[in-house]
Amino acid sequence: MSSPLDKIKPNVREITAYTLAPLEAPIKINQNENPFGMPIQIKEEVLRRARNYDWARYPDFVPTSLLKKLAEYAGWTPDGVMAGNGSNEMIQSVVNSTVEKGVRVVLPEPTFSVYRQVINVAGGEILSVPLNEDLTFNIPRLASKIVASKADLTIICSPNNPTGCVIYTRDLTSLLRNTDGLIVLDQAYLEIGGENFVPLLRQHKNLVILRTFSKAMAMGGLRVGYCLAAPELIREFAKAKMPYSLNFFSMMAAEVALENLHLLRPQVEALRCERERLFSELQKIEGLMPVPSAANFFAVRTAIPPKQLFEGLHACGILIRDVSKAPMLSEYVRITVGTPEENNTLIAALKEIFK
Amino acid sequence: MSSPLDKIKPNVREITAYTLAPLEAPIKINQNENPFGMPIQIKEEVLRRARNYDWARYPDFVPTSLLKKLAEYAGWTPDGVMAGNGSNEMIQSVVNSTVEKGVRVVLPEPTFSVYRQVINVAGGEILSVPLNEDLTFNIPRLASKIVASKADLTIICSPNNPTGCVIYTRDLTSLLRNTDGLIVLDQAYLEIGGENFVPLLRQHKNLVILRTFSKAMAMGGLRVGYCLAAPELIREFAKAKMPYSLNFFSMMAAEVALENLHLLRPQVEALRCERERLFSELQKIEGLMPVPSAANFFAVRTAIPPKQLFEGLHACGILIRDVSKAPMLSEYVRITVGTPEENNTLIAALKEIFK
Repeated sequence: MSSPLDKIKPNVREITAYTLAPLEAPIKINQNENPFGMPIQIKEEVLRRARNYDWARYPDFVPTSLLKKLAEYAGWTPDGVMAGNGSNEMIQSVVNSTVEKGVRVVLPEPTFSVYRQVINVAGGEILSVPLNEDLTFNIPRLASKIVASKADLTIICSPNNPTGCVIYTRDLTSLLRNTDGLIVLDQAYLEIGGENFVPLLRQHKNLVILRTFSKAMAMGGLRVGYCLAAPELIREFAKAKMPYSLNFFSMMAAEVALENLHLLRPQVEALRCERERLFSELQKIEGLMPVPSAANFFAVRTAIPPKQLFEGLHACGILIRDVSKAPMLSEYVRITVGTPEENNTLIAALKEIFK
Repeated sequence: MSSPLDKIKPNVREITAYTLAPLEAPIKINQNENPFGMPIQIKEEVLRRARNYDWARYPDFVPTSLLKKLAEYAGWTPDGVMAGNGSNEMIQSVVNSTVEKGVRVVLPEPTFSVYRQVINVAGGEILSVPLNEDLTFNIPRLASKIVASKADLTIICSPNNPTGCVIYTRDLTSLLRNTDGLIVLDQAYLEIGGENFVPLLRQHKNLVILRTFSKAMAMGGLRVGYCLAAPELIREFAKAKMPYSLNFFSMMAAEVALENLHLLRPQVEALRCERERLFSELQKIEGLMPVPSAANFFAVRTAIPPKQLFEGLHACGILIRDVSKAPMLSEYVRITVGTPEENNTLIAALKEIFK
């Protein structure tokens, strides 16, 4: 007998659903969020504007005012910017407008799992390039894979989630020069660290940059991402994006945040300081080895099983991420940089666990 | 010389981008929005909850509380519900998990243009079934096309945008029985009119229902849609949906709306009365012929060119939709039912134009 499941594409049925157990804890350092939260002045201004807006009305078809602000912030042209529902939607639009069965996509791994999910749904063929053993990008291998496979698309997360490694301008430039394929740079953590590749956009029409308000901009709950590329590419990506995908409230919040960067910058400075302090504290604990990171998190190698460390910390009210199912990371957890107080509590708990 | 545009799929390059000119007017009856707006009590409660939420935190991975409320509201099981960023994202998830090159999709047309856009991006083959001349569904032709083509997917909008026609339970049941393919019923306008097909879900595992908060629920600006189907199908569709696609604010607003349906129901009653009044007033105007509609809008045949009527009304501060580029509708505009005052102004303006 036939089942409606027969109508689901085989490549979708094969995917293991992306899930996250709904655990709670007083200290939540498992999702690379900004631990300081949105500054109250920004919240109040957004809520004030939201009260005056007619919620029944669709948002602008093209969010002209936001695109202009984003272009100014990023140093690019407004018609080369697309904004939408988190960088997830940007990834989806780029992949859905370029990938179908038989299209080859190069992916350094381990990396953010959504890339693999979206490429699989689109039916693309993933060519995985492992990181070096020290969890940095293997540039020679990446370069030869892109060239030899004539890859149509390459997606690089820099700083990379969950390892924190970065690609440098000279290496990226060389990759861009040696392929006709598109190279997508997901720079979700750019404000926290890593080189800014916007200056490369003018010369390299095959470069696509993704950015987000979910990390440094303290808006993980509101899902605003944007894509920077040549205007002719943006026009095509936009066809694979749903109209009105950015709701009025998230759009307002992004605008108010951009108008008040002076309130967010000190948070980023504090995060950078805490990252350095946490790194050196983690290094001191025997049984833990944090990997240097340009982002607001660390991949940390642990001498006890990651699941056990996860559970030990959860018992202390601290939620981290067990990333041991990712390739190369069977002995790793991922820890997000928290507030100074949260980091103190974490360090004390870790010292107790590893004493 | 190669261009980065070569990497865009040919089926995407061929698509004409969906656009809407950014026109403004005091009376906006061009997007089938709820003209009464969100009741102030609901707005205040949502803003109160939003003030207490930490915006930097990702929303729940699975919005359990909202799904439970939606299931209760719709009369279905929570594990058979998926919620996301407008019904647009629901359409996209269903299409992306089922459609690839060579997959046949039956579409009665004219209908909501996003279906065609999403199917084209996915590379599917559209089998268009024209409506009857009176702009009702041509059920025999639809049935024979679905059976003869062995279509994998059929998408029916009921009440249909932009014509307002509906499909009836007996006809839908017969379509569902005679195909192994999925049949998607987009019921965006259900609260305003048309039969509710949720009771068919238990018997027909190939039925998928889409609903939205953008119309009767006065939340067009917040983009909340949901999908009802057999739990085993929902699990597959969810793999093609981006995680965290529903931001915390829209999620809260949907929950507060469901907790306060008593505030929204009178608006829907008023809309239905106004629809009947507007229909009979439009009928009286020589040169206009409104098509009977179960939704909060009418396709209206006009004796003067649609563009001219559109511009004439815009000059009076009234924005309607020129739908004359859609198949079969070269002599039609679409008019949304407004508030009683807006409808009075519209009727007076039309009487002047057609006097």
